[in-house]
Amino acid sequence: PAGPALENPGVTEFVGTSIGDTIGLVIANIDSTLQEKMGLDKRFRSIGILGARTGAGPQIMAADEAVKATNTEIVSVELARDTKGGAGHGCLIIFGAEEVSDARRAIEVALKELPRTFGDVYANDAGHLEFQYTARASYAIEKAFGAPLGKAFGLIVGAPAAIGVVCCDTAVKAAEVDIVGYASPAKGTSFTNEAILFISGDSGAVRQALIAARDVGKRLLATLGEEPKSLGVPYI
Amino acid sequence: PAGPALENPGVTEFVGTSIGDTIGLVIANIDSTLQEKMGLDKRFRSIGILGARTGAGPQIMAADEAVKATNTEIVSVELARDTKGGAGHGCLIIFGAEEVSDARRAIEVALKELPRTFGDVYANDAGHLEFQYTARASYAIEKAFGAPLGKAFGLIVGAPAAIGVVCCDTAVKAAEVDIVGYASPAKGTSFTNEAILFISGDSGAVRQALIAARDVGKRLLATLGEEPKSLGVPYI
Amino acid sequence: PAGPALENPGVTEFVGTSIGDTIGLVIANIDSTLQEKMGLDKRFRSIGILGARTGAGPQIMAADEAVKATNTEIVSVELARDTKGGAGHGCLIIFGAEEVSDARRAIEVALKELPRTFGDVYANDAGHLEFQYTARASYAIEKAFGAPLGKAFGLIVGAPAAIGVVCCDTAVKAAEVDIVGYASPAKGTSFTNEAILFISGDSGAVRQALIAARDVGKRLLATLGEEPKSLGVPYI
Repeated sequence: PAGPALENPGVTEFVGTSIGDTIGLVIANIDSTLQEKMGLDKRFRSIGILGARTGAGPQIMAADEAVKATNTEIVSVELARDTKGGAGHGCLIIFGAEEVSDARRAIEVALKELPRTFGDVYANDAGHLEFQYTARASYAIEKAFGAPLGKAFGLIVGAPAAIGVVCCDTAVKAAEVDIVGYASPAKGTSFTNEAILFISGDSGAVRQALIAARDVGKRLLATLGEEPKSLGVPYI
Repeated sequence: PAGPALENPGVTEFVGTSIGDTIGLVIANIDSTLQEKMGLDKRFRSIGILGARTGAGPQIMAADEAVKATNTEIVSVELARDTKGGAGHGCLIIFGAEEVSDARRAIEVALKELPRTFGDVYANDAGHLEFQYTARASYAIEKAFGAPLGKAFGLIVGAPAAIGVVCCDTAVKAAEVDIVGYASPAKGTSFTNEAILFISGDSGAVRQALIAARDVGKRLLATLGEEPKSLGVPYI
Repeated sequence: PAGPALENPGVTEFVGTSIGDTIGLVIANIDSTLQEKMGLDKRFRSIGILGARTGAGPQIMAADEAVKATNTEIVSVELARDTKGGAGHGCLIIFGAEEVSDARRAIEVALKELPRTFGDVYANDAGHLEFQYTARASYAIEKAFGAPLGKAFGLIVGAPAAIGVVCCDTAVKAAEVDIVGYASPAKGTSFTNEAILFISGDSGAVRQALIAARDVGKRLLATLGEEPKSLGVPYI
């Protein structure tokens, strides 16, 4: 398809865009009444905004790297039921910062991470699979998923949810990992058609669990449609 | 595309259709057990029904004009997560009336208003923006948005929600308005990918806030896709 | 379109697929920590999994036949907001069994029932209608819809929800039936754009109510698009 109508919208808040209809924005000095109505922590006058139609995991993982690299905090993570007719989430992630330059830097880092964090997202017309890994979870992962800080973390998503359930079971049987949480259409998701597992533990074990789940997930999703394709470059 | 299979379905309940897969219907004498199960006010034996796949704001604004013009009340407003794969809501609005002719008249008025109330809805493949204005809010707006009766009212919607946040901030900085409410993917919406602001106040200020938000919203949405197009004729 | 990439994925959990992107799976020995995190009854070491992108009613009705025919129980029914951009639900249904052969048999029965239970689902681009009937409701219907065991049961769904409301009113006026429940975009659904009625009672009356609702529903949906087409072979 053609590119966007505007590369540069001439709006000071604009930072950039990326895969998944992700847009990155900053507000140097958010209106304080609005900030209150939004339920945001009022310590920060500057905010960074990372939002997308498609994806929540990739953006949260990208935000986690951004928080590690900058002087910002994650003040809010909200998940829409979206993916443009697909089975999953969209997202709205808000960073707080004392200086707008810090908020902008965080958004820039997150946007740059996205092609990587979409690497182990696999999709076809019938559904999608997502696998994420980090050797050291930081504040975005803690905020969004309740995972312990500083430990290896893994995320497993399968849609339709039936496939996700088998991926989750495969993962926890493949290696000794801790289950941080489980989410499904009626519990812990925004009514997406996904089963999701959050795991933590030894770095090698988390990777082993993810790889086993990815193998079975790709085979199962292929029974409902075309061979699932990576949306980026696999990194796990 | 071709027109609908039936222009006139030969069903007494049918009133008409409009933009956004909106359909208008009446029930002269609703079954009283069903009425109770639906949780509707039992004072009214006749109901008018306005429902749509795409849109909630345009239909609520249209219903507001219908309530002003007829002897009806708004008894229920429910928002589906819909827009046919888009980022927003669909709706189900129910009017109560003592006479079916009043219910029918309300639905007719609402259907006629819709091409106008879709006028400041702008969309492209990546998302949508919506702006609504009335010089005097009536009962539909009060019921759906909690806005004060009889005052100027404005609605600002941006999707993906990240764009909506900047629209909201721009609006409240552009003019002295009261924030009636704010909604976002996890709070106050049906998990849509929207940030929404409800504003009230002086008529000129409300319009000024809307126009400023519209300008920035259209620029930002154009960075994710084609130039956003109005779905009707802009009226603000 | 082309068939799926894999007919046989070489995964022991795989049972089969059917209409609506439905997949049937079994886990012989579910990981007990995962089972606990999923909130499943721990009496069963084997589970059967029936999940779909499109449909909840057809799969629940199919599961009801599967429960009647096998030594299994329904341990969980979750409804996603899905249908791939349509107005309705997807689903995740979990059977419990003591032996994996029982779980597998239940999934096989359910998959075989689906072409029938999609028979009175009618759709066009603007929405869908669904009607289901059984002379004797069993445990899946009781679990999902709260309907009384052993009695005739009927399900009426209309989308957009406005059309569903008229279908529901038509049904209860057409015959003497008991209303088991009503669901709508903001109450009892996963924010779908549907109005849904669950009815119970005398077998002839339930059928009569369904047939009346189906007639009016098909006419109304045809005012918004093409003539609604059955997704299978009508059975009511």
